[in-house]
Amino acid sequence: MTNNLAVCLSPALIPLFAVEDYIVVIIDIFRATSSICYGIENGAVAIIPVSEVEECAAYREKGLDYLLAAERDGKVVDGFDFGNSPFSYTKNKVAGKTVVLTTTNGTHALHLSREAKKIVIGSFLNLTTLCNWLKTQNENILLVCAGWKNNFNLEDTLFAGAVVEQLKASDFKLDDAAIAANDLYQIGKNDINQYLKKTSHGERLKKLGIEKDIEFCLQVDLTTAIPILDGDRLVKL
Amino acid sequence: MTNNLAVCLSPALIPLFAVEDYIVVIIDIFRATSSICYGIENGAVAIIPVSEVEECAAYREKGLDYLLAAERDGKVVDGFDFGNSPFSYTKNKVAGKTVVLTTTNGTHALHLSREAKKIVIGSFLNLTTLCNWLKTQNENILLVCAGWKNNFNLEDTLFAGAVVEQLKASDFKLDDAAIAANDLYQIGKNDINQYLKKTSHGERLKKLGIEKDIEFCLQVDLTTAIPILDGDRLVKL
Repeated sequence: MTNNLAVCLSPALIPLFAVEDYIVVIIDIFRATSSICYGIENGAVAIIPVSEVEECAAYREKGLDYLLAAERDGKVVDGFDFGNSPFSYTKNKVAGKTVVLTTTNGTHALHLSREAKKIVIGSFLNLTTLCNWLKTQNENILLVCAGWKNNFNLEDTLFAGAVVEQLKASDFKLDDAAIAANDLYQIGKNDINQYLKKTSHGERLKKLGIEKDIEFCLQVDLTTAIPILDGDRLVKL
Repeated sequence: MTNNLAVCLSPALIPLFAVEDYIVVIIDIFRATSSICYGIENGAVAIIPVSEVEECAAYREKGLDYLLAAERDGKVVDGFDFGNSPFSYTKNKVAGKTVVLTTTNGTHALHLSREAKKIVIGSFLNLTTLCNWLKTQNENILLVCAGWKNNFNLEDTLFAGAVVEQLKASDFKLDDAAIAANDLYQIGKNDINQYLKKTSHGERLKKLGIEKDIEFCLQVDLTTAIPILDGDRLVKL
């Protein structure tokens, strides 16, 4: 039987999919899922995604040795250890630690997908390793773009298109969004950073002074770890 | 002030937009908005879009001379005058008449947009006339793709991209979805029918035996009427 390869262009569209029949890949390129891939690669024991800043703060009161990461609207929340910048997820900061991560969009998408067969984390950093693993699973695959406050965005969609590019030679049935994402990837793939510069989100992030983060997040195959959800925590597959 | 030119890729995403600040263009290329454009062009006094088959049937009981059009899952509902095929909306059938139209997706999108400044109907049939009018409005514009049961589809998105193509030289701020739709249009524009053949929706419609409808709906600038919502009915602008 041919498996489906589908792209969900916004978390608001997740209810259209029977996620329990899919392996879900969560995509939030700028910057949550890039940082998660980098953190797990660098030896974080686990990354616990939470929805609310309060939920994250509660871990400090548990008296355990958690690193607390909270970001809203692209900025670190006062009183937290760090936010979503991948440069906070280096070996010397996260190795052996558990990070509790609050993010605007990635966590939202992840929570809405919790009934999936498996939930893994994708970014350009672990692209090929992720795709090679997906090819061996013989399951329906749903690529969930976290977007920005439920809005469609190009960077997550382009990454979905990059995954489709590696999987489409296998025997998958693509939905319209997978076809579109892959076509957009064809347009942007030679210089993704340049392609994304025309987007509003790129402008917004540029204003926040995180161009270096953006460049970092667009590096392909820098890592080989695949973060997978186990209970309430993301761990190395 | 620069106006926004935004694309809403699914009716499920309409709540993300403050539609009261926009002129909304409803897009349901296969086939509701194509048939509406053709029907209004051909002298229909009005087309009344309704959500439910029962609501449509109720017009017969009002004892008035309405033509009743009801379609579900691409087929005419038993007992109704016709469905969504544009070939049902010719001069000799609709001139001087009021048509009550039930559709799966177009009506859904239209109802969710009802707070908009104005709601007009777009299709390849009235593309250039519509764009020329939009250029003169000095308003934010939201292109709403009706999709298929809230799912993204390529044909509606490509049409949105065709509108962006004609408007982008004017002073609009494009959102990511408008950029994506326009880029997809660049890929498909030389032979839209061929481009759409790789989509699942195209396959589904082909099974229904409506390839002629599809060809008809992809004709550019066949008509010059712009249907606009006035109360509960679509009339000629």
